[in-house]
Amino acid sequence: MGQFLLLGSVCLFLPFLASGHMIHYRSADPSASLLNSQARGPTTSNISDIFVGRCEEHVQCLQQDQCNTNTTLRGTCDQLWGTFVDAFAYKDPCQAGNDDYDAVIAAAMPHANKDESLFWSGLPKLALNNGRVTGRYTILEETLPGYIANGLTWCGQTGAPGINYNTPCPSAYSSGCANETMYTFWRAASRAFARQATGTISVALDGSRTNPPAFRNTSTFATNELPNLNTAAVTHVNILLVYDISVKGDNRRALCDKGSIKDLQTLLTDRGFTYTCIEGPRGFKFLQCAGDPDNARCVEACSFAVIPNASIALVLAASLLIKLVTGVRN
Amino acid sequence: MGQFLLLGSVCLFLPFLASGHMIHYRSADPSASLLNSQARGPTTSNISDIFVGRCEEHVQCLQQDQCNTNTTLRGTCDQLWGTFVDAFAYKDPCQAGNDDYDAVIAAAMPHANKDESLFWSGLPKLALNNGRVTGRYTILEETLPGYIANGLTWCGQTGAPGINYNTPCPSAYSSGCANETMYTFWRAASRAFARQATGTISVALDGSRTNPPAFRNTSTFATNELPNLNTAAVTHVNILLVYDISVKGDNRRALCDKGSIKDLQTLLTDRGFTYTCIEGPRGFKFLQCAGDPDNARCVEACSFAVIPNASIALVLAASLLIKLVTGVRN
Repeated sequence: MGQFLLLGSVCLFLPFLASGHMIHYRSADPSASLLNSQARGPTTSNISDIFVGRCEEHVQCLQQDQCNTNTTLRGTCDQLWGTFVDAFAYKDPCQAGNDDYDAVIAAAMPHANKDESLFWSGLPKLALNNGRVTGRYTILEETLPGYIANGLTWCGQTGAPGINYNTPCPSAYSSGCANETMYTFWRAASRAFARQATGTISVALDGSRTNPPAFRNTSTFATNELPNLNTAAVTHVNILLVYDISVKGDNRRALCDKGSIKDLQTLLTDRGFTYTCIEGPRGFKFLQCAGDPDNARCVEACSFAVIPNASIALVLAASLLIKLVTGVRN
Repeated sequence: MGQFLLLGSVCLFLPFLASGHMIHYRSADPSASLLNSQARGPTTSNISDIFVGRCEEHVQCLQQDQCNTNTTLRGTCDQLWGTFVDAFAYKDPCQAGNDDYDAVIAAAMPHANKDESLFWSGLPKLALNNGRVTGRYTILEETLPGYIANGLTWCGQTGAPGINYNTPCPSAYSSGCANETMYTFWRAASRAFARQATGTISVALDGSRTNPPAFRNTSTFATNELPNLNTAAVTHVNILLVYDISVKGDNRRALCDKGSIKDLQTLLTDRGFTYTCIEGPRGFKFLQCAGDPDNARCVEACSFAVIPNASIALVLAASLLIKLVTGVRN
């Protein structure tokens, strides 16, 4: 009977092997976020209307997904727009100073509750959807500065009207533009998000990508966020390796005990953080399956659990027979 | 070996029994939508900023979830706000005319692609999240007029400034207020959404609620949408009975061949529509499981499939032994 229970639980238990916390995220890696996944255009048309409207929405908690973060606005939304414009208008968009957006961030501090800060890399759409579906974690894009700016494009120009509405804004990855203004904003927001994190933080990475690997030393998390985590306030780091169900064949290209994830763990240990690492957190898989319910991976855990291999099948069969015999006797 | 395959597929197959299309929705039932699930306040502060900002976002497709609907704005967003204000400002909010918002809807027609219109009732949060997670269906709240108004509160007053920003707006369900202005807007938007639907439409209902039942003859779908569906353009109706994983015990309180759903089917047949009905569409369950991955219902299909009962266990055990013997022989 003990054997039966042990083996009967193979199927039940398997999903838990990959179980993880459920989460939100934020822009650990602006280079991979929505704003950079689209071709760069000029400054978004009517950006002031969108900026102010989003600010009002956030302050009044009109969208279900940001209502678990406290309002942190200092001043009015119109004033925040003014502060924001001052940071880049009439300036060369490739010559942003590292502190250009400090006043914006000070007026609109990112905030997440204890244990709810989620950093992410390589999962822009999934991260945002996760944030919207679950109310238990917060990504930068759900906090006040992230919500306002997500998906917008902006850049200044030295001549009037000071904002470039006509030609494509430069990318931080083009030659001579490392100090690009938008990227400077996201770096500042990322640092502030890292500084405010307390308790257990989570880091969601794309475990199905290989180039770049799931974690890289040059990512925003490694260069802007990890160094800004408060070692006295952050108690633990939960690494989540999310596998992409749309990838054909073996989508588990990163593992907790190999390659780039070991590099991340070394960095965490060096900074004095303890960590856990979960391969294939179930919540993220459910979220992907919601969008693609007929994907074979969305039913495979069960089928694999039934006949994992011949030796387990033998023990399972034996245990079932024992169960039947026991059942008949009782 | 045939037996083995038959039985080995029990686990694999079970999830498909509950398989369904994946979807978006829209406000078939404003009385159950987000706007009515909260205590009613005065007109939303800075509503014009939020309204215009959302309009600009939708026109420019800045939010991932509404980008599968075409822009339908006639005029500018500022003009749309003016048209909207004209519909209710300086008016008694309980004396709205049925056609007060016709000009607003004409300037901002709801639109969904063929086979992608989803109506819903009783599932406001799940519906919206579904719309955001999947890109294959559209609910009213993702179309231009629905996106702009969702979650906002507004009402007029006969005295200056014509908009009531100070006292709670009346509910359509309070005495003498059947012609409430917000409800009038949502009815007009619902009718327009129904009129534009083509191909197969989907109707998602809360199959776990009992009072009211999953479908009621007085719902917005029954009274405003079904009568406005174009019988020449809509070819089929797909009823989706969504079960709430947070309900204890048996959450399948509505079934396709019983009670209120039979009433709905009769109405559909009377109007000449063919229909299918799915109990527990998997996509909706996955979406709920993404938010609550440790819920027992999110792993139960698998565990039930392994040891459904003693007789199946016997056959399964035998088939596994056959498989092993066959494996050894080969």
